[in-house]
Amino acid sequence: MQLILLSGGSGKRLWPLSNDARSKQFLPLLASPNGGMESMIQRVVRQIREAKLTDNITFATNAVQRDSIINQLGEDVNVVTEPERRDTFPAIALASSYLAKEKKCNDDEVVVIMPCDVYTESKYFATIAKMVKAVENNVADLVLMGITPTYPSEKFGYVVPESTQSLESAFNNECLRVVRFTEKPNEEKAKELLKQNAFWNGGVFAFRLGYMMNIVNQYIQTETFQETHKRYTEFPKISFDYEVAEKAESVAVVPFTGEWKDLGTWNALCEELPSTHIGNVMMGDNNKNTHAVNELGIPVFCNGLKDVIVAVSPDGIMVCDKQDSEKIKDYANKLTTRPMYEERRWGTYRVLDNVEYEDGTRSLTKTIHLNAGKNISYQLHHHRSEVWTCVEGEGIFVLDGERKEVKRGDVMNIPVEHLHAIKATTDLTFIEVQIGNPLVEEDIERFEWKWTE
Amino acid sequence: MQLILLSGGSGKRLWPLSNDARSKQFLPLLASPNGGMESMIQRVVRQIREAKLTDNITFATNAVQRDSIINQLGEDVNVVTEPERRDTFPAIALASSYLAKEKKCNDDEVVVIMPCDVYTESKYFATIAKMVKAVENNVADLVLMGITPTYPSEKFGYVVPESTQSLESAFNNECLRVVRFTEKPNEEKAKELLKQNAFWNGGVFAFRLGYMMNIVNQYIQTETFQETHKRYTEFPKISFDYEVAEKAESVAVVPFTGEWKDLGTWNALCEELPSTHIGNVMMGDNNKNTHAVNELGIPVFCNGLKDVIVAVSPDGIMVCDKQDSEKIKDYANKLTTRPMYEERRWGTYRVLDNVEYEDGTRSLTKTIHLNAGKNISYQLHHHRSEVWTCVEGEGIFVLDGERKEVKRGDVMNIPVEHLHAIKATTDLTFIEVQIGNPLVEEDIERFEWKWTE
Repeated sequence: MQLILLSGGSGKRLWPLSNDARSKQFLPLLASPNGGMESMIQRVVRQIREAKLTDNITFATNAVQRDSIINQLGEDVNVVTEPERRDTFPAIALASSYLAKEKKCNDDEVVVIMPCDVYTESKYFATIAKMVKAVENNVADLVLMGITPTYPSEKFGYVVPESTQSLESAFNNECLRVVRFTEKPNEEKAKELLKQNAFWNGGVFAFRLGYMMNIVNQYIQTETFQETHKRYTEFPKISFDYEVAEKAESVAVVPFTGEWKDLGTWNALCEELPSTHIGNVMMGDNNKNTHAVNELGIPVFCNGLKDVIVAVSPDGIMVCDKQDSEKIKDYANKLTTRPMYEERRWGTYRVLDNVEYEDGTRSLTKTIHLNAGKNISYQLHHHRSEVWTCVEGEGIFVLDGERKEVKRGDVMNIPVEHLHAIKATTDLTFIEVQIGNPLVEEDIERFEWKWTE
Repeated sequence: MQLILLSGGSGKRLWPLSNDARSKQFLPLLASPNGGMESMIQRVVRQIREAKLTDNITFATNAVQRDSIINQLGEDVNVVTEPERRDTFPAIALASSYLAKEKKCNDDEVVVIMPCDVYTESKYFATIAKMVKAVENNVADLVLMGITPTYPSEKFGYVVPESTQSLESAFNNECLRVVRFTEKPNEEKAKELLKQNAFWNGGVFAFRLGYMMNIVNQYIQTETFQETHKRYTEFPKISFDYEVAEKAESVAVVPFTGEWKDLGTWNALCEELPSTHIGNVMMGDNNKNTHAVNELGIPVFCNGLKDVIVAVSPDGIMVCDKQDSEKIKDYANKLTTRPMYEERRWGTYRVLDNVEYEDGTRSLTKTIHLNAGKNISYQLHHHRSEVWTCVEGEGIFVLDGERKEVKRGDVMNIPVEHLHAIKATTDLTFIEVQIGNPLVEEDIERFEWKWTE
């Protein structure tokens, strides 16, 4: 069995912690069982492993999120990166092609699609196991998870099963045949759907790989995954629900009742934070229903607040009433200039200082952390010089083809247009001072370098 | 006439903007007439000059505040620094000795003492002019300003004048003979004092220099100011009010009625801020009676707040209900580790990053700005190396006696125990990376260097 986790969406709904480069699923704000903190994707992958569902995990994602996934989960998961953002059908088609053509999975193999950012409990993964069994038993071409609704929501798609009479006979109450789908209804219609025992569509689908590849082949027929990847834009921009689920002739649903949340707003996230405050925060003795999250080193002090969220990151500072925090997305676009913190496949960086001087030249100071064994690609910049001062660890620095061992205290001087790279022997931290204009991540030209030579 | 401004107090009541090194009087939060911002001392000195009171301004202060005063006011004011903190009498005695022995002022010269952090209007300075006249006319040995009380405060000392009958005859209603002083009374007593037409003691005193030097000589008789400075601890730790005012045989008071405030709390300060927000702040459309001050480069966003103060500085972040902000002093001591921003006689620095690594070594990254023509003293550190990367301007760098011109992009490498200094030819900014442990301002040994050679 193969599990595909969809990781998409760029969210500013959790600004300043989330931004274009850092979506909510990567924020390390949840309590992990080992006493530390974990992100949503770390939590979901841990739950998948604890449920012994499968070790074959593939993330379908975009270029921006690729590095965060690798940095947070290591090399144990596969990552399929879409060349451009389209919709869920192309993303799932690409990941399925990867399984079929790169991983050489069999047409009979069961594939499960699920969101990577659902906040749920172990029963959810037991439900996925039932869905897999249903596909294996040829109950239907497509089996999906039906979330038992708790109120007549207008936000979700609904899955309408056969009338209750047919329930027990057919699948022992574990699996129901699907009659039809209904997209986000108004409240009145939603109430009716609830009377018909309809479920919310949770975006979890199980099918045999061959079933999906038949649909993929209607658009792109190739020998290799690379070719499919190249021709990605030939897939129509359409959701999996419209392209596959609604057109499927044989669809079943396995119900799930239990904790199932989208921690996509500050309000929802606060309910699951392990404490009223995270990071360097001191709460006075007079706060009510107030949460503070601080990712900076400097202290935050809160007092006399009621229903307030204080969120602090290298990108900015939000202080909002919990109700008003829902609107942050509208403001965040006006607030953010460039990402001040990013996770990369090699580690992380944080912008410490970013200044424009009177003559138009800029300087930008970063702290850059490389995980042991990782490297920054061999590159040059057209508009900036860089000075790196190593403050922790050891590594190999390359400048214009010359290798040099560097350690704490060493200074690396990189003029404009000069090729450079660094590889961390141990965990490695350096302070980077960029000088020039513009100072943007895009000013980079990458070259090949063979570290093993 | 000579004016002595008392600049003391280390305040955390305006944390995180104020700290041990930066008192409220140095915060550039008030609207200046030229459209920019000014600090309390800049405002007071501007008002003194506008009132054409005098150009002879001497600050009596401590070592910590000396650099801020020079940085904010330039070389046009004298600064007398007490070797250690004692009380107002020793501070005024030292400054008076400076006027007598260093500036060679005459015994007859009138000296006025005033606080440097009073928020007031031009009438206040006109009142000081009347006090000077009263001393010149030999109305009394000591003339002080009486603030017309607006309520029976328990926080102030009171000055009780002769009964109203004597008013008009003696000094034409401008000046009253003082009968006695009363220190902070309870409310009942304060109400009685108000009935007696008592004034608040505003801490403004005028006297002839010779009068004060007679008192000074009771404790320390020296030929030079340097000697007095050396023997400073021989002055008793006592306030000017107790040691001079209450013992004086002939005291008069000049009343002042008008704006007179201590902007010593966030609540009081907010009322005088030129805007609801200062710095990189975006206010949403749903705030009430909320103020935000941001000294960092990253944006602050506030929404849905009522009666809240958000204050952000390199030292930390405070989010408090206005009432609760009064208690910040109690918490601030637990919050602050080291100053993250300081004004020095040569410019300013700000800490960008401060980290301890697993092996106990630390790194600390600063941005340091030198004003054109200024220099950092020739110095060495026993516990840290430093790397300086020039990001703006030009200067002369000295390392172990060797001079070198430096400009933007140049890197200066300073090993532990090596002598170094830098002088700014133009305005000069560099990023400093310190490596070692401990990384404290106190790890500094200063040496002589002749820049003119």
